[in-house]
Amino acid sequence: MQIDQTKTISALATPSGIGAIAMIRLSGPDAIGICQQIFSRDLSKVESHRAVFGKIMDGKEIVDEVVAVVYRNPHSFTGEDVVEITCHASPYIQQEILRLLSDKGAVLAREGEFSMRAYLNGKMDLSQAEAIADIIASESAAAHRMAMHQMRGGYSQKINSLREELINFASLIELELDFAEEDVEFADRSQLLELLDRVLKMIQELAGSFRIGNVIKNGVPVAIVGEPNVGKSTLLNALLNEERAIVSDIAGTTRDTIEDTVVIEGIQFRFIDTAGIRVTSDAIESMGIERAFSKIKDASIILCMVNLSKDDKAAIEDEVSNISDRLDVGQRLIIVANKADLANKEDLHKLDDFKNRFTLLKLSAKEGSGMEELKQDLLAYVKEDPAASQQVIVSNARHYEALKKAEGSLLAVKEGLENGISGDLVAMDIRQGIYFLGEITGQISTDDLLGNIFSKFCIGK
Amino acid sequence: MQIDQTKTISALATPSGIGAIAMIRLSGPDAIGICQQIFSRDLSKVESHRAVFGKIMDGKEIVDEVVAVVYRNPHSFTGEDVVEITCHASPYIQQEILRLLSDKGAVLAREGEFSMRAYLNGKMDLSQAEAIADIIASESAAAHRMAMHQMRGGYSQKINSLREELINFASLIELELDFAEEDVEFADRSQLLELLDRVLKMIQELAGSFRIGNVIKNGVPVAIVGEPNVGKSTLLNALLNEERAIVSDIAGTTRDTIEDTVVIEGIQFRFIDTAGIRVTSDAIESMGIERAFSKIKDASIILCMVNLSKDDKAAIEDEVSNISDRLDVGQRLIIVANKADLANKEDLHKLDDFKNRFTLLKLSAKEGSGMEELKQDLLAYVKEDPAASQQVIVSNARHYEALKKAEGSLLAVKEGLENGISGDLVAMDIRQGIYFLGEITGQISTDDLLGNIFSKFCIGK
Repeated sequence: MQIDQTKTISALATPSGIGAIAMIRLSGPDAIGICQQIFSRDLSKVESHRAVFGKIMDGKEIVDEVVAVVYRNPHSFTGEDVVEITCHASPYIQQEILRLLSDKGAVLAREGEFSMRAYLNGKMDLSQAEAIADIIASESAAAHRMAMHQMRGGYSQKINSLREELINFASLIELELDFAEEDVEFADRSQLLELLDRVLKMIQELAGSFRIGNVIKNGVPVAIVGEPNVGKSTLLNALLNEERAIVSDIAGTTRDTIEDTVVIEGIQFRFIDTAGIRVTSDAIESMGIERAFSKIKDASIILCMVNLSKDDKAAIEDEVSNISDRLDVGQRLIIVANKADLANKEDLHKLDDFKNRFTLLKLSAKEGSGMEELKQDLLAYVKEDPAASQQVIVSNARHYEALKKAEGSLLAVKEGLENGISGDLVAMDIRQGIYFLGEITGQISTDDLLGNIFSKFCIGK
Repeated sequence: MQIDQTKTISALATPSGIGAIAMIRLSGPDAIGICQQIFSRDLSKVESHRAVFGKIMDGKEIVDEVVAVVYRNPHSFTGEDVVEITCHASPYIQQEILRLLSDKGAVLAREGEFSMRAYLNGKMDLSQAEAIADIIASESAAAHRMAMHQMRGGYSQKINSLREELINFASLIELELDFAEEDVEFADRSQLLELLDRVLKMIQELAGSFRIGNVIKNGVPVAIVGEPNVGKSTLLNALLNEERAIVSDIAGTTRDTIEDTVVIEGIQFRFIDTAGIRVTSDAIESMGIERAFSKIKDASIILCMVNLSKDDKAAIEDEVSNISDRLDVGQRLIIVANKADLANKEDLHKLDDFKNRFTLLKLSAKEGSGMEELKQDLLAYVKEDPAASQQVIVSNARHYEALKKAEGSLLAVKEGLENGISGDLVAMDIRQGIYFLGEITGQISTDDLLGNIFSKFCIGK
């Protein structure tokens, strides 16, 4: 994505739709001059950060009465001259103002171009720009907090300062190469090893937080496994009611997957309903079981729901071990024994010996008993992760990949130093580690990388 | 609708949905104080119309980085202290900021409450406030221009000054009543008559413009009457293509009515497809004909489409007179003879004698010939209306009703004067005319009236 910063861009910044007010944003060297041509008041002497009431004119015709706020470079979001025009939220007016601005020389901004200019002008680094998109998409307090921390600088500073230290060492080692015949050692090897350990520790901490960062950002995927009448929707409704949350039906990746979303104590959980997985000879039901397993594979938590008052213990045992045999590291199984209100005394305790091996919860979704325990068990998945208490959490897959690559390079440096490998190879591996770290904050960037990141933004951002 | 102006209100002013930026607006005596409690920078000394970059804080937690613009009373939209917070367009952030503002004492604004406060504080009159809603809803240049004119003052000033003159006269006549025994005449009857004529002329001009104002505002309703294969959708598509307009399918008032909207030279036309209305013995088709007639009744223009290459002249004649017999004043019939491209020489001229009685257009929707003439014939409906060239046009049904009532009262005054009716009765009728004129601009208002007007606004307006 090539950006021509000699051009002035414009776009609608507010959502389209019905409302009182909308904002159109201009940024670039001629932002004030272009706006001036359609604005009724003199903007040339208006100081920065000043709101001016005036009219947008199409020749002699008044298009709208608006407020224009001028931000003079570098004191603006993009670091360029910016004018924000607040107009009435009429689709006709918005379209007319954008048309007039285009007539006077503004070009329509591309996706994410405002943020990209802000990055190119040094107003924010790449990971901060990426955080803006995350902030806007956040649907829970935890996801929002994480994105906000990243936008405020997050781990950028830490990465940058360690990266600076690595650059120094790389330079010293490269200097040694120039004096190869004299066998000098400018770079203190023990200091370098100490630095490597510090950098690797940080990288591993950050990379280790990605699993939890990712589920906080996108919602913790929870598969509910259970036969049709076991009470899955009653359970979901009970959770929803307690949280007074908004139920949203998101069409999942497969056509038959409908997700329910519940936010509990600021953490979002995405519930995916799956069929039961008891052994069957029916071909169609077998397909259902295969689908259920594929959904279980993608879930962080599996709620295996059984009917405490009716289901046979052997069948339950069979189903539970069927799931637990397939669990991956990081997946958690919770057995939810529902309909405790209908169970007789004997049934009520028939699964008690499961407790040694699994998390077992007896509850009645219908009567609402045991729901608090369920919520705490769900939250435990996030809270018990050691990374969850970290100040900085990585939630961006691109950052995670770069961290893993940097880790690989720096581990190679360490191994090289320990095995006495020659300086030029060590320097090369350090440079590669530096490169990958630089990709996170954008000190290293390519057109492809930038295009990839900003094209996912919306226009006007 | 009772408004407590000691309270400070807040609301989302921009449309909800996905975008880069959203605005939350606060208005009221404590707008700055309430915002201050959650804003990271000191607002107490910030001058009016100044944009301040800062953070919205929930205790120690950063909710968002925002720009706050302070408008100090009376230099604001509402005439009160106003703070506009521009935040990221994340539903989560918007909800959190509104929640924090509410915690600190702001109440959520009711529909139209910002505009209503602006009216109550004398920042605009009623008809101007109503025009804002029209501006936002405008979908065509002509509707927008009309609403903009009304918001800029429109006929308010003219009505107000004539109303003042009427008030003077009413007072003089009422003064005479106090000196009834002395038989004096403070109010010059010939001057009063002259004034009445001036006021009535203006009222009648304004009221007379309502028919055209209403169709400009809501779109000119055009019924297309024609048998299924006569080419109605081809015609609509041809119109749409020429105008490169956005086709919108609006579900009409009746479930089976789908409208297509085309903007031609800034005027919006709403096309309503109806069945043909040829005489039939089939019961179900007869019902269709009844429906067609009821739609024709609501249309300003009726396009009667016939197939020039096939349809029998007698049948066409029958259909056309069937419609023209039922036309109301102000309705216009255009006979569109389609498929001229397929017609032989004889067919091509078989309807020529219609021209004496009707507007007849021969065209080929498929080949696009004759479309320009059709557009000009449609536009003529608006352009030939004498009111269309007036500077001021009434498009608001409430204003139209008030004008008609005022006209009634003032005609009664005139008649009373001519018949030498006693002063107290004349004064009463003048007062009534004054009352109705005052309702338009809001010099006379009741809670019911205001509630009725502003409750149709959206929240945040």
